[in-house]
Amino acid sequence: MVIDKNECVKLIRENGEFLVLSHEHPDGDTLGCAFALCEILKILGKKRAFLCSDEVTADFSYMTEGFSADEVKNPFVIAVDVADLKLLGNIAEEYKDKIDLCIDHHMSNTFYAKNNFVEDRAAACEIIYELAVLMGVELNQYIRNCIYTGISTDTGCFRYQNVTPSVFRVAAELMEQGVDSKKINKLMFETKSKSSLRLEMIARETLEYHFDGKCAIITVTQDMYKKSGSNEHECYPITALPRQIEGVLVGAVIKEKKDGSFGISVRTEDGIDAAEICARLGGGGHKGAAGSSFRETYEEGKQKLLDSIKISLDGISK
Amino acid sequence: MVIDKNECVKLIRENGEFLVLSHEHPDGDTLGCAFALCEILKILGKKRAFLCSDEVTADFSYMTEGFSADEVKNPFVIAVDVADLKLLGNIAEEYKDKIDLCIDHHMSNTFYAKNNFVEDRAAACEIIYELAVLMGVELNQYIRNCIYTGISTDTGCFRYQNVTPSVFRVAAELMEQGVDSKKINKLMFETKSKSSLRLEMIARETLEYHFDGKCAIITVTQDMYKKSGSNEHECYPITALPRQIEGVLVGAVIKEKKDGSFGISVRTEDGIDAAEICARLGGGGHKGAAGSSFRETYEEGKQKLLDSIKISLDGISK
Repeated sequence: MVIDKNECVKLIRENGEFLVLSHEHPDGDTLGCAFALCEILKILGKKRAFLCSDEVTADFSYMTEGFSADEVKNPFVIAVDVADLKLLGNIAEEYKDKIDLCIDHHMSNTFYAKNNFVEDRAAACEIIYELAVLMGVELNQYIRNCIYTGISTDTGCFRYQNVTPSVFRVAAELMEQGVDSKKINKLMFETKSKSSLRLEMIARETLEYHFDGKCAIITVTQDMYKKSGSNEHECYPITALPRQIEGVLVGAVIKEKKDGSFGISVRTEDGIDAAEICARLGGGGHKGAAGSSFRETYEEGKQKLLDSIKISLDGISK
Repeated sequence: MVIDKNECVKLIRENGEFLVLSHEHPDGDTLGCAFALCEILKILGKKRAFLCSDEVTADFSYMTEGFSADEVKNPFVIAVDVADLKLLGNIAEEYKDKIDLCIDHHMSNTFYAKNNFVEDRAAACEIIYELAVLMGVELNQYIRNCIYTGISTDTGCFRYQNVTPSVFRVAAELMEQGVDSKKINKLMFETKSKSSLRLEMIARETLEYHFDGKCAIITVTQDMYKKSGSNEHECYPITALPRQIEGVLVGAVIKEKKDGSFGISVRTEDGIDAAEICARLGGGGHKGAAGSSFRETYEEGKQKLLDSIKISLDGISK
């Protein structure tokens, strides 16, 4: 069922115990939502716990360290920033019929929850911010930091095409109230570990162009992580790189995972739908940024990706 | 003389012919100020011309193409975003006693003009925006784009420590009114030419650490521009790189100029004053970002830079 913000608030008000779920390989927005929501629930006098299929990386420790879970027995389950059930990772099977509410900003949301509150926003954290305001919850610094993390990371620090006046206004409010934006920006956008610098150098060597330079692909292998002393999480900044190259309309990064399968990140220019490119490969996401994965060989998977990109590029040249 | 915004408005109102000056190697903020101000003056029915020691690079053509100068005989001269007379470059000598008004946001401003309106803002364009509002000038799309260019480029697209709630609010206003932020962001922050990518790869190889990794330096030579097919303007993104490395408090880029002299860009973490480091070398700027130049050999100049950095690093360890 699709619900509006008032029904969403009602569901939160009438329940007492909550379990908040983030998506696999959790990023700043899903974690910002989850921990901000948990803190809001605490302020409202409710019990809440948090669950995610993957470990939260150390750069988000300012969120995890400020959180201690309550014991919950029969919780009302809320998934935040989770567009599709399968993005819950290895807890998807267990929770598939148990998601009471989904709060999300992906227009590709599959409405898998009993109640779905989905709005087209730059970040799901923007929605959490509005719900807090609507419920009359006074933000504390922890909530401000969580929400700022979500809106800044999902907008590339106010750089991506998804930024709206509302995003700027929420940021202005949070900053006026003293949010630790300097610390968070430094951590999220301005810090490159020496190992991630090395990874970037090595990975850039794989840069290849297709379709008259309209498409650029970078490949990151497990071997590169080993050589550079980096980890998969440090691959993230590389994701943006191919599409930034002059003349490139579709940028993709193919990432080898530990189990030998591959992840694909696709970023596109205005007018080409990244979600569409990835949907043909069984994935999804936003118009400008989407993802998918494959278990075939690298060459086979890349060919399928190129085929899908070609369909979208052919579409615009008509 | 130091003046306030009302006196600044008065000076603009009571004059009829203007010459607006930008600083040498003009960036988004000085150009955004100059062309926004010229358009505001035009709307006010005044004549205006523009002058800069260096050519405006092609990426700012959306500003220059929308501008055609009037003939001015005995103009009231306004310098925008120019902290020091010598930053006017090769027109400094000619105009040294002729600057009627300086509008600037650098706290290192030397008050060289007859009237100086200096406020501590993230971008000088923020001041131009306020003056326009104060004068009741309705912004058109050209002015919006100029002002957005200044505030976005001087804040690293809302990422640097100088961002304030006011910056976000101006951005929200401009976006609400339809500023071409997507186009400008793409041009300013999201486009890397193939040659600049190559330059970055080559320049990164020169990365060296000093003072237990607290300082990182990258060097860019004329030879590298040749090898990569890039130009000096494409060096700009590299400037931010050294300071972004984990543990680095002072990042510097030493750039060889065509005449054999060198430019220095210094970026620092909170608590270390980049302007101070550069002031010891005859330069200046902001707390977090400053610059200087030298005519000695590379080794001599670098040693002086390192000596100055050491003084600042020693200062914090006390």
